[in-house]
Amino acid sequence: MSQELRRRIYDELDKIRLIDPHTHINPLAPASRTLADILGYHYYTELAHSAGMPRHEIERPGLSPREHAGRIIEHLGPVENTVQYSWLIEMLQAFFGFQDDRLTKDNWEAAYDAANEQMSANDWADQVMERSKLDAVVLTNDFDDPLDGFDTRRFIPCLRTDELVFHLARPKVRERLARRTNLPVDDADTLREAISALFVHFQSHGAKACAISLPPDFTPQKVLPGRADTAVRELCQRGTDADPAQQRAAAHFVFWTLAECCVEFRLPFDLMIGVNRVVYESGVYQGQDLFDSRVSLIQYKELFNAFPQVTFPISVLASSTNQELASYAWIFPNVVTNGHWWYSNTPTHIEHDAAARLEAVPRTKQIGYYSDMYRLEFALPKFNMYKRVLAKILSERFVIDRSWNEETAIALGRQVLRENVERIFAIEA
Amino acid sequence: MSQELRRRIYDELDKIRLIDPHTHINPLAPASRTLADILGYHYYTELAHSAGMPRHEIERPGLSPREHAGRIIEHLGPVENTVQYSWLIEMLQAFFGFQDDRLTKDNWEAAYDAANEQMSANDWADQVMERSKLDAVVLTNDFDDPLDGFDTRRFIPCLRTDELVFHLARPKVRERLARRTNLPVDDADTLREAISALFVHFQSHGAKACAISLPPDFTPQKVLPGRADTAVRELCQRGTDADPAQQRAAAHFVFWTLAECCVEFRLPFDLMIGVNRVVYESGVYQGQDLFDSRVSLIQYKELFNAFPQVTFPISVLASSTNQELASYAWIFPNVVTNGHWWYSNTPTHIEHDAAARLEAVPRTKQIGYYSDMYRLEFALPKFNMYKRVLAKILSERFVIDRSWNEETAIALGRQVLRENVERIFAIEA
Amino acid sequence: MSQELRRRIYDELDKIRLIDPHTHINPLAPASRTLADILGYHYYTELAHSAGMPRHEIERPGLSPREHAGRIIEHLGPVENTVQYSWLIEMLQAFFGFQDDRLTKDNWEAAYDAANEQMSANDWADQVMERSKLDAVVLTNDFDDPLDGFDTRRFIPCLRTDELVFHLARPKVRERLARRTNLPVDDADTLREAISALFVHFQSHGAKACAISLPPDFTPQKVLPGRADTAVRELCQRGTDADPAQQRAAAHFVFWTLAECCVEFRLPFDLMIGVNRVVYESGVYQGQDLFDSRVSLIQYKELFNAFPQVTFPISVLASSTNQELASYAWIFPNVVTNGHWWYSNTPTHIEHDAAARLEAVPRTKQIGYYSDMYRLEFALPKFNMYKRVLAKILSERFVIDRSWNEETAIALGRQVLRENVERIFAIEA
Repeated sequence: MSQELRRRIYDELDKIRLIDPHTHINPLAPASRTLADILGYHYYTELAHSAGMPRHEIERPGLSPREHAGRIIEHLGPVENTVQYSWLIEMLQAFFGFQDDRLTKDNWEAAYDAANEQMSANDWADQVMERSKLDAVVLTNDFDDPLDGFDTRRFIPCLRTDELVFHLARPKVRERLARRTNLPVDDADTLREAISALFVHFQSHGAKACAISLPPDFTPQKVLPGRADTAVRELCQRGTDADPAQQRAAAHFVFWTLAECCVEFRLPFDLMIGVNRVVYESGVYQGQDLFDSRVSLIQYKELFNAFPQVTFPISVLASSTNQELASYAWIFPNVVTNGHWWYSNTPTHIEHDAAARLEAVPRTKQIGYYSDMYRLEFALPKFNMYKRVLAKILSERFVIDRSWNEETAIALGRQVLRENVERIFAIEA
Repeated sequence: MSQELRRRIYDELDKIRLIDPHTHINPLAPASRTLADILGYHYYTELAHSAGMPRHEIERPGLSPREHAGRIIEHLGPVENTVQYSWLIEMLQAFFGFQDDRLTKDNWEAAYDAANEQMSANDWADQVMERSKLDAVVLTNDFDDPLDGFDTRRFIPCLRTDELVFHLARPKVRERLARRTNLPVDDADTLREAISALFVHFQSHGAKACAISLPPDFTPQKVLPGRADTAVRELCQRGTDADPAQQRAAAHFVFWTLAECCVEFRLPFDLMIGVNRVVYESGVYQGQDLFDSRVSLIQYKELFNAFPQVTFPISVLASSTNQELASYAWIFPNVVTNGHWWYSNTPTHIEHDAAARLEAVPRTKQIGYYSDMYRLEFALPKFNMYKRVLAKILSERFVIDRSWNEETAIALGRQVLRENVERIFAIEA
Repeated sequence: MSQELRRRIYDELDKIRLIDPHTHINPLAPASRTLADILGYHYYTELAHSAGMPRHEIERPGLSPREHAGRIIEHLGPVENTVQYSWLIEMLQAFFGFQDDRLTKDNWEAAYDAANEQMSANDWADQVMERSKLDAVVLTNDFDDPLDGFDTRRFIPCLRTDELVFHLARPKVRERLARRTNLPVDDADTLREAISALFVHFQSHGAKACAISLPPDFTPQKVLPGRADTAVRELCQRGTDADPAQQRAAAHFVFWTLAECCVEFRLPFDLMIGVNRVVYESGVYQGQDLFDSRVSLIQYKELFNAFPQVTFPISVLASSTNQELASYAWIFPNVVTNGHWWYSNTPTHIEHDAAARLEAVPRTKQIGYYSDMYRLEFALPKFNMYKRVLAKILSERFVIDRSWNEETAIALGRQVLRENVERIFAIEA
């Protein structure tokens, strides 16, 4: 009974057209050109490396895409159990007519060629979006991205601000800022003007959010004007040689300024909380970051209180922070739960975390899922994974445990999967 | 099979008469007088506020109960998914013949009137207790409560001590203490005498426990007599201007003294661990507190070792602390697991936490549930929620997974739901 | 459907012959001689004590084994719900023809006698291993264990190093080190030589791993040579009077040296992370340790980066650390997940933790389970508990949720239960 019910609910959820509220898609090359693009996703390279593939096998220069793909596939046997591997197989089956349930040395080249053929179509990205029922995706743009040459209603800009907050001491970052804004920055006021100019630029190009990822020890705080000014001046003069305390103060000032701009420009501020960068120093590209689960949203108390006008869609890296997230979203009007991030983006963690949110956070304040993808092909298997878990929760915890009717359960699913994304990010569908 | 089994076990659990071991019931007005009393419960006001209802809409003076109820109901649409909303509907159905599954602008006034009619009966509180199978409820009394005018065998006093530990610096608190005890307090010895007098008063009125809620950073410790004396003297002289270190020392002294009194007066000491007060400063009444899940029971090591004669029923606010709680209760004879508190009082967390306790903590050392309610009507839906989860755990994890027979499983349920409450709090049923 | 499927998978898993990768078996007396040996396991004494049995009842000198067993059994009623109690009953049923489902004052003496009769067989240990399908067990040997008098292919040595790292200041520990190695130790170099000599001794006797348990606040770090030398010299001269900072530096030096020896001798280094010793000071023997769940694998960042050649099978005491463990094993090639330790060794925690690992960690990098047992009889019920949970996960989360076929699911089970143990510890079966 329960499995049929789950299937019926899944089938209805699967009809919903989607807006993906957080991706790393390059709008000028949104889809893969070969299977190597897909296999180069850090989930495959890092898992293959973790299971024994030397990094140099795939990071040496001059490898052709086919060689690159072949080398990774050769090392995927040990990761066939992972859900990330299942994304790959589901994608191959859905898009390229793949019939098997694993890639082997015998079948991969045929799969590679079949994929290439389809991917060579001029409208391949459109095909992927259509088959994936994707109406639009939200990007993650560098602060100096010109945002030119693509349809910003389909590829919706989002201002990524990690570099501004954490790496402003680097001369290159300040140079890029100067080039984008044509504004000189040498103190707190001019920095604020430059940041404001970025918001003007982004908003005029249809941006719908500001976003940042944050380490576990970051605690936003308002910096007094004089203190901020001293810090920014030192940063501009001494760069990465600036006193670490000054660099921290400058980071706090920039972060707070971003929140102020979110008020002024009426943008949500996506906070992705909890990542430690470059923990595994010899890891493959994008496969070096991890986390410390000892983080608390109490660190954001001052911020949430100071900015009632800003909506903060929040992702947490550790599932052990999920109860805090659900509780803070249940109390703070401006806190919204946002998807299942990275190391928490696996069925066991999604099931626990989504169930806890669905039963305690107002349904209008939950963004169910985003793919975090770099290539369009990944939306389909990732959203399908989420929809399967969501169907399980809705059937078991709402229809069976709480006697909801199926229609109401499906409507709840639709709201967190689609409607809230539109409303919270003010996206006109 | 599993759902029928679960239903059979639930039906047996549902026959058990209850003693609710922790509530905030006012024994002089234990039941609601209008639906506004029910809707004024902080779960509804804070969730409605979180979903968009401005605080002033319900906190302005002069609102009639009907207006108050109407305004909250108007904003409940976005929280219909929550389990807290389901308590409301189940209560309306069970007590007032409500036939729908949600409150709307079309049906709420009829529901309001129907509720009012029933609530106007002289014996309404008795009716609620009878229909809820409630034999008695444990209260949470201010330390200066006269404890007069009610049947203390049905409404069992419990000495709440938060103010004594954390707010003794406030002149009003010390004045209330002086008025209740007729004892002058100006140093550690006289403070101890006054506290002891409170215990005498409470015990003579049938109190069965001492209770306190504690912030995540509190670590009980014994304070040397001279140090305690200095601290209390400064507190009495300078009030809230006293040095914070002195205030902390005084808090530790009072807490330790309470534990000593629990030895002397043979009372359990309920510890509710992990709440941060007033995190959301503009939140509605009682809707401002949250938590930091970075707390450990290792902070209570000194206390548990120092007071083997005192039973500590312990509630933790964060589900991530539950494994520690279960483990400390498995090792320390004086540690008992106590219910599912506040932000952990939702089905997903209860299921995980109760399952972990039931399979590793001696069955005599588990208090299954308390309602934490302010009005009697809430016992029914809250205990029903718990009984449903308990029936699920007993059927799936004991009868199916461990081949228990149903009778033994039900007996385990009865023990944690009722028998342990009687025995641990020495309540004569 | 799901329960039949689970049963079929369990039956297949149950055919697998096992190597138990972590035990406390005494190879010279591996099996129990009476039921008192079984009931003396700390799980029973500590749970009985937690439920009310005074410690002196079982720790007084001169108790006969029968008296000892009787006293514990008398206090087991309150712990009949625990999974640890179920191990006892399953063991009695499997090995001694016990027919009931609980031990009572009426049946225990017959059970005691029946057990004694079987246990008196000369080949009892062999019988237990055969009926438990145990090919070999890995031991936990004191660093000065002579490793003589037993078959090291069946009872595989493992160098336990807690005392070297944390108690080298104790004169007795240094004396034992001197006696075993015949090397004088008075500075960092000679200490390194002595440690190296232990590795030579262990490896020549077939040792397959080095192991240590670590408190939550331990953060491995490389100590500069001069600093290490000063610390070791002070330790050797002043023993436990040495400055705590010197003792800490020496501990870090020893730990780092052990990792270096693991490189040289090509041994995995089992890290068991998170235990606080002697938290409950009046607890029964081995029933005093607990934990602080505020620990993070980020503390091991420097270690994991410094020793890519060493495999670190890692156990964590708190289930809340499991997501970090799975994530670090997914990223670091040298991190392997290892079993379900102590307070996390109960079905609810195993189910959550194993599911999260199975779907995100390469299948070659997961050691499913170890028994941690002191007597051979415990492998059977403990592994059966794990196999039941594993069958549940494989059936529900792989066959049903992810459409795997049963054979593949069973193969995954076999890999984590058996094959990985052989490969990771280089055990020739």
